[in-house]
Amino acid sequence: DASTLPIRATLFPGDGIGPEIAVSVKQVFDAAEVPIEWEEHFVGDTVDPRTESFLTWESLESVRRNKVGLKGPMATPIGKGHRSLNLTLRKELGLYANVRPCYSLPGYKTRYDDVNLVTIRENTEGEYSGLEHQVVRGVVESLKIITRQASLRVAEYAFHYAKTHGRQRVSAIHKANIMRKTDGLFLKCCREVAEKYPEIKYEEVIIDNCCMMLVKNPALFDVLVMPNLYGDIISDLCAGLVGGLGLTPSCNIGEEGVALAEAVHGSAPDIAGKNLANPTALLLSSVMMLRHLGLNDQAEQIHDAIIKTIAKQKYRTVDLGGTSSTTDFTKAVIDNL
Amino acid sequence: DASTLPIRATLFPGDGIGPEIAVSVKQVFDAAEVPIEWEEHFVGDTVDPRTESFLTWESLESVRRNKVGLKGPMATPIGKGHRSLNLTLRKELGLYANVRPCYSLPGYKTRYDDVNLVTIRENTEGEYSGLEHQVVRGVVESLKIITRQASLRVAEYAFHYAKTHGRQRVSAIHKANIMRKTDGLFLKCCREVAEKYPEIKYEEVIIDNCCMMLVKNPALFDVLVMPNLYGDIISDLCAGLVGGLGLTPSCNIGEEGVALAEAVHGSAPDIAGKNLANPTALLLSSVMMLRHLGLNDQAEQIHDAIIKTIAKQKYRTVDLGGTSSTTDFTKAVIDNL
Ligand SMILES: CC(C)[C@H](C(=O)O)[C@@H](O)C(=O)O
Ligand SMILES: CC(C)[C@H](C(=O)O)[C@@H](O)C(=O)O
Repeated sequence: DASTLPIRATLFPGDGIGPEIAVSVKQVFDAAEVPIEWEEHFVGDTVDPRTESFLTWESLESVRRNKVGLKGPMATPIGKGHRSLNLTLRKELGLYANVRPCYSLPGYKTRYDDVNLVTIRENTEGEYSGLEHQVVRGVVESLKIITRQASLRVAEYAFHYAKTHGRQRVSAIHKANIMRKTDGLFLKCCREVAEKYPEIKYEEVIIDNCCMMLVKNPALFDVLVMPNLYGDIISDLCAGLVGGLGLTPSCNIGEEGVALAEAVHGSAPDIAGKNLANPTALLLSSVMMLRHLGLNDQAEQIHDAIIKTIAKQKYRTVDLGGTSSTTDFTKAVIDNL
Repeated sequence: DASTLPIRATLFPGDGIGPEIAVSVKQVFDAAEVPIEWEEHFVGDTVDPRTESFLTWESLESVRRNKVGLKGPMATPIGKGHRSLNLTLRKELGLYANVRPCYSLPGYKTRYDDVNLVTIRENTEGEYSGLEHQVVRGVVESLKIITRQASLRVAEYAFHYAKTHGRQRVSAIHKANIMRKTDGLFLKCCREVAEKYPEIKYEEVIIDNCCMMLVKNPALFDVLVMPNLYGDIISDLCAGLVGGLGLTPSCNIGEEGVALAEAVHGSAPDIAGKNLANPTALLLSSVMMLRHLGLNDQAEQIHDAIIKTIAKQKYRTVDLGGTSSTTDFTKAVIDNL
């Protein structure tokens, strides 16, 4: 029985509160008897010339080999001559789609109670090309690059996701009325893919209008797919609707079947090591990882335990206005399994 | 007494519902005895070679001469060989700052009741440069241009606005962690200007985080200043918090002291001519125009009458879930003067 063989997965605890919340995930997985063996990798304290960053080459090799991983927050050390940790991971592992389900948590009240959408962000190009230069003194330019290949790939992922997750509609978010060529190409690719999925409704929404609709009535949306920067903006906006980045999971889909689940919040150095961090986003991300591996029973079990725990004011951590410690929250999740 | 001399102002009723809502403004101004004489200009139906658009040269001359105007929605006719009407106005009149106050309307309930902020958008460059090209088949790029001159100008406007409007804080919105050079230059200019206004608090907020904070707690913000596209996105998001573009005014500040107040919603061709349009955004924009002219008494009088009218379900137009006609709403505003 394959599901009893341990699956090897890479774990990047990350910095700041990262190690504490990673412990939380390990304890919950142990309690739920998830058949996963972690390969833990920390960010190095010197630049590895092979990655041009503080990420070690071995850690990237580990994800490439295991094809699956979980990542805590990583703050890029300040200074020159190296690359951002997050961007290096995206580039080196070809993490082309960032998937962020966003839904109202039963038991955690915000201004919105009817959010249930998924943002799918192109994660490799667009405004993140890194191509910038000074034209003359006082005049600088940044290049936004959109390619047919990356746009088709993320569009294909979005429609496939919609189909396999019982979703009805894909909205492509853009500003093609202004960036006719770049966002225009992105839309053209989405339309091509949409034709192959006649059972999924397809629409196009201009980003400014999309943001207005999201704050007025987020229930209008289902799956959203978009270029890199719009995805960065809209996924955070959506997280805000349901309580913030401390409560929302994400998973990056990469080349050659790699999946790297990730808590996208910061490393909160101010509260690091104080047993105050909220492990929810990393736990929910680990649930996405389990679903990706087909470990659906354990995924549901852990998911439900997290939801139940958050619903109790008593177990809420400081960021959610509570007083619980990381370890008490974790114990409560385990008790709720 | 100068305030009794009629002031000449240009009026662009615009398309779709534009003419109806412009009538509403004219009637309210008449009733309030505002000393303004309108020079009305419609969008032409052929391309004027001097403007490269359907805008007539005479209409631009009118704004340049009067230095003040009011503009309804303008849909750019589809086809090639001419420029967008809105972008042409911005370029030809050097409308470098788009100012959008956004506040919870007493009497109109949304999920938020504590919004009171102003977005100030750089309106001439950034992602709106219009510079795009195909590098090779399947690879296109857009250029985002940031200049020291335009950034200083809009930053200066934002701080001056804060100071003269009793505001405490200016937040510069950016993504300089990714676009280090372009958004970096924008921030550098904001910092330079901030030094000249020690009485105004200055902070920098990354756009994704800003959007999350805005939907969680918009009361955290006061004046926000930002490059073009971020302004486009965030101003619509903020409008959504208080009810949408049908309720929020805007004013464009241009070179040589030009001010063009503007309703930024669409022209709603589906309800055009049916006496169903909501004139609120254009009326509130006209109030911004009056304040700009120093006609503060009339501005307050009209503003208060609009707020009072909207507070009554009976006078709400269809877009606000009511059944009132444009003319009934307008009459009610006049009765409330
Ligand atoms: C930290 C930053 C570079 C990153 C991004 O802009 O992509 C973050 O905001 C995210 O969404 O993962
Ligand atoms: C119509 C469009 C070109 C315009 C813009 O993107 O600036 C609009 O969204 C606005 O905010 O005025």
